[in-house]
Parts: sequence; C-alpha cells; structure tokens
Amino acid sequence: MYTKLCRPVPSINFRTVTCFCKPRQLNKYYNIIARANCSASSSFLCDKNVIFVAGLGDIGLDTSKELLKRDLKNLVILDRIDKPELVCELKELNPKTKVTFMPYDVTVPIAESKKLLKKIFDKLKCVDILINGAGILDDHKIEATIAVNYTGLVNTTTAIMDFWDIRKGGPGGILCNIGSVTGFNAITQVPVYSGSKAAVVNFTRSLAKLAHITGVTAYTVNPGIIRTSLVAKFNSWLDVEPDVAELLLEHPTQSTKECAASFVKAIEKNKNGGLWFLDQGTLENIKWRKYWDPCI
Amino acid sequence: MYTKLCRPVPSINFRTVTCFCKPRQLNKYYNIIARANCSASSSFLCDKNVIFVAGLGDIGLDTSKELLKRDLKNLVILDRIDKPELVCELKELNPKTKVTFMPYDVTVPIAESKKLLKKIFDKLKCVDILINGAGILDDHKIEATIAVNYTGLVNTTTAIMDFWDIRKGGPGGILCNIGSVTGFNAITQVPVYSGSKAAVVNFTRSLAKLAHITGVTAYTVNPGIIRTSLVAKFNSWLDVEPDVAELLLEHPTQSTKECAASFVKAIEKNKNGGLWFLDQGTLENIKWRKYWDPCI
Repeated sequence: MYTKLCRPVPSINFRTVTCFCKPRQLNKYYNIIARANCSASSSFLCDKNVIFVAGLGDIGLDTSKELLKRDLKNLVILDRIDKPELVCELKELNPKTKVTFMPYDVTVPIAESKKLLKKIFDKLKCVDILINGAGILDDHKIEATIAVNYTGLVNTTTAIMDFWDIRKGGPGGILCNIGSVTGFNAITQVPVYSGSKAAVVNFTRSLAKLAHITGVTAYTVNPGIIRTSLVAKFNSWLDVEPDVAELLLEHPTQSTKECAASFVKAIEKNKNGGLWFLDQGTLENIKWRKYWDPCI
Repeated sequence: MYTKLCRPVPSINFRTVTCFCKPRQLNKYYNIIARANCSASSSFLCDKNVIFVAGLGDIGLDTSKELLKRDLKNLVILDRIDKPELVCELKELNPKTKVTFMPYDVTVPIAESKKLLKKIFDKLKCVDILINGAGILDDHKIEATIAVNYTGLVNTTTAIMDFWDIRKGGPGGILCNIGSVTGFNAITQVPVYSGSKAAVVNFTRSLAKLAHITGVTAYTVNPGIIRTSLVAKFNSWLDVEPDVAELLLEHPTQSTKECAASFVKAIEKNKNGGLWFLDQGTLENIKWRKYWDPCI
C-alpha cells in the first residue's frame, strides 16, 4: 500500500523511502502526501524543513532569500549574532514559509548542539536538510578558523545524526556543507583557511559514501571568489601578502546573488556525493581524482 | 668569494643559498664548510640539526632509527610522553648524532611552542629540518583529532617561522609534514581523521608556494596503510564500521620499517612542494590535479 501511495510523489528521495520501512514513522507518510499537493510541487524544496547554520552570513543571507522563493515549510536560521532587521526582512518575503532565528555558535561543545537540535526537532517533528555554512576567513586566527570551519561543522553534523541516523530509528536526512574552491586548490596566502576547507570537502565526500549505513546523504557547495565583505579585506598567514584581498578581486568574481542562485540549484539537484563548484554564476559537479583506494 | 666557496658543497639548498645574502649569518658559511667535510658527505642529512615532533611514535621511532644512519648532528625528539628506554636505544645507535628528548604536546598554545623552540634554537643555533608527525586516529575523538592532526601542526609550523622566516632575518628552513593518503582520498569510515589529513596536505602545498617569501620550503610524506599499533584497532565515526581496522589490514600494507626507509628517502630528495606517497615500500611524488586557479 505504501509503495502504491508513494508513486505520485515526484521528489521522493532516499530519506523518504527509508522512512516507509519503519512503522513508527508513519506520520512521515502523511507529510509526503501533503507535499505531493504542494502548490509549487515542481520544486524539490517545496514544503521542506531546512536548518541553515550561518543563514544570515555573507553567502547565507542571499541564499536564504533564494530558498524562500521555493515555498519551504520552515527555514530555521542558526547564527552567532542575531540581526533582527534581516530576520524580519526574510519573514516578510514569503508568507508560506515560517522563518525562525535561534542563536548558535558552532564552537560550543557537541552536547549544546544536540540540545538545540532537540528543541528544533521537538517543534518541527522532522528536518529535511541541514546546511552547514559557518565560516571564518582570517589567517591571523588559526584556532578560530579551524574550530569554526572544520570542527564546528563536524560537531554540528555529528549532533544531528542522533536524530537522523537510520540505525537509531531516524528517518535519514540531507546534509549540505559549504566548502570552498580553496579546498580543491588553495589560495596559498591563506593556507590555514584553505586547509580547513579541504578538510570539509574530504569529510563530506566520506559522509556521502556512508549514506547506505546512516541514511544521510551529503554534498558540498564550493563557491569560487565572491564579492562579499568577508573577501573585501582579510588577513593572510603571517602577512605573507597584505594585499591578498585586493589581488583576488582583480580577477573575475561573482556576486552573492549569483552564488545564491547556483547554491539553491545545487540543493535542488540533491545529488549524494555532489562536489559542486560555483564560480562566476555557473554550477559544475567536479569529479575528484582517485589517487589511491583503501579497498574497503 | 662566497659563490666560489659554495660550489664544492653538494647538498646546497634554498636555505643555505639564502643565508649567503645576509652578512649577519656568516657563521652559517662555516657550518657549510664543516658539512662539506662530513664523513658521510654523500648524504643530504649529514651533520644536519633535525627536530622530530612525535619521533617516538608508531611511524616516528623507525624513522628516527633510519635518520640516525645518516650521521645527523642533532636529533631533537619532541613527544607527548617520554619513553626513556627508547630514547636510550636511539642514543646508542650512532655516537656521531646527539639525540635529545623534550616533552611537547602540540595542542599547547602557540606561545608555549615558541618558548620550547627558543630553547632549542638557543642551544643548537640553527635547526635545518622540522618534521611534524603528531597524529591521532580515533574518530570518536573529534576535537582531539583535529587539534592534534591539524591545529597542532599549523601552530608548530607558525611558531618556528619566528626563527626561520627570512623576512625576520632568519635563515629559512625545511618543513616536512606527515600527511596521509587519506588526505588524497579518505578512508570513509574515519571521515574526521581523513579530513584533518586533507587539511595538512592542502596547508603544506600552500607553504611550499610561499617559500620565495618566507625562505621555508615544505613537503608532505603521505604513508599508505601501515601495520602499526595505531592501525591495529581504531574507532570509526559513530561506529559506522566497527571492524574498519581488520578490514584495512586484509589488503596489502607495509611495515613501519619499510615506511621509514621511504620516509628518509623523501627527506633526502628535499623537494619543495613534494607530495610523497609512501605505499607498500615504494615512494612516488604525486601530481595534484588543478581544479581551479586563484591567479594570484
């Protein structure tokens, strides 16, 4: 019976298929029926519940606006600093989507992340997508760069597994991590930042390959150089190049709006293991080179 | 005159060339003459001062033994835990090399690392090579893995720049960072560890490209799977594969001795930007793929 009812749902994915196998999550089934009737049913994101870490940030804000065009059910923005005027602006963009802000610093202990996520899951019942977007670009701040860009992302991801992991009876989920092209090939003047982004890319590729065990699919969006306040001025490692920002911006870049449009397109493609390269308004799925194979 | 005297020195490198431009470092010139007369002058490592972080570890111990065959002047081993019997064993291997042990935890604040390095530089006057080898393989320990494998390596590297950076009047130096093949392509069952090693690989590639500014050349040695106590049993992320160690060891591996031999060969090649892949007793310099170019 479930299989039969599933068929009309166009955006069915790994997560929703999984949940049909688990009688305790039958309420999921009703959600899917509701989604099939969504007014913007052509959008993968219609009626979804999305958590966006750093959804008010440089890339985050325009991406949040772009997401709101897709009739999400809920957009929960977690960010370090509340910016009430921006949250108000987002709330007014689409009455179909409930926008919520909750303060969150990704460097808190993992137990704190779990507590916050529990509040969100208790309220929304299900979360479809987690976007991890917290980032620092300042190679004078070694500990902070690594703690936010890599450790914070790993901890937030690990925390949500308590609610998503199918081995714990969870429904699975979709993880969208913001990497960077510097994770492929560094901006050598910011080696600490670039290294932290290489870590994010490598980490997320693994998670995608573990989806058959955890039920959680994963991909990265990796923006090229964007004209943001983050890039306008930043410190290079040991000041090896004080003008690194200016030099970067002499070459072709993209606006946050262009990046946001590609970002949401990548989310809609919903490709497990996607390694999305977002540059100058384009979107490309990179094929990573195999240098060796652990064979397991 | 200096140029003329330089010619007979077979192992002259970026660092020693640089120091000839700086009259205040003329004592370096005498060191080089001494090295040219070294009994094992065919070895690049003869009469060198080497700091080895984690030189008593799983890979470290056999690599230390292999280094001692090269008539170093000093081998300063920094490790978290003193193992006096191992240090004694190393001291007895080659009377030409002075082996010293000093306790060091790479997770201390950078100011502590600088203090320790100052002691070493005060004593030895010059340090030729720093080997960064501290590592944890345990994906239950997220913070520790990242703090040791990446942050600790970056901090130790940043700390030694106070003494090496040619912009500060230093003589330059050679940085050898232990990465891992998991930094190229992950062992997906340990995504946190693999990500931290991807960070090391990316970070070190940048440093190599900054050598013309800092005077410090850099490369990574990236071992494949080794039969060590580290690999015999380790935790996968969220226990996605409890038998990950056993599974890995079902495939061809290498002994620590084989790895150590390749490791020291890589050091002797002294290739700035080298991305050394050490697997099953072989040594190969990997060419990293260019996915994009920041053009600066």
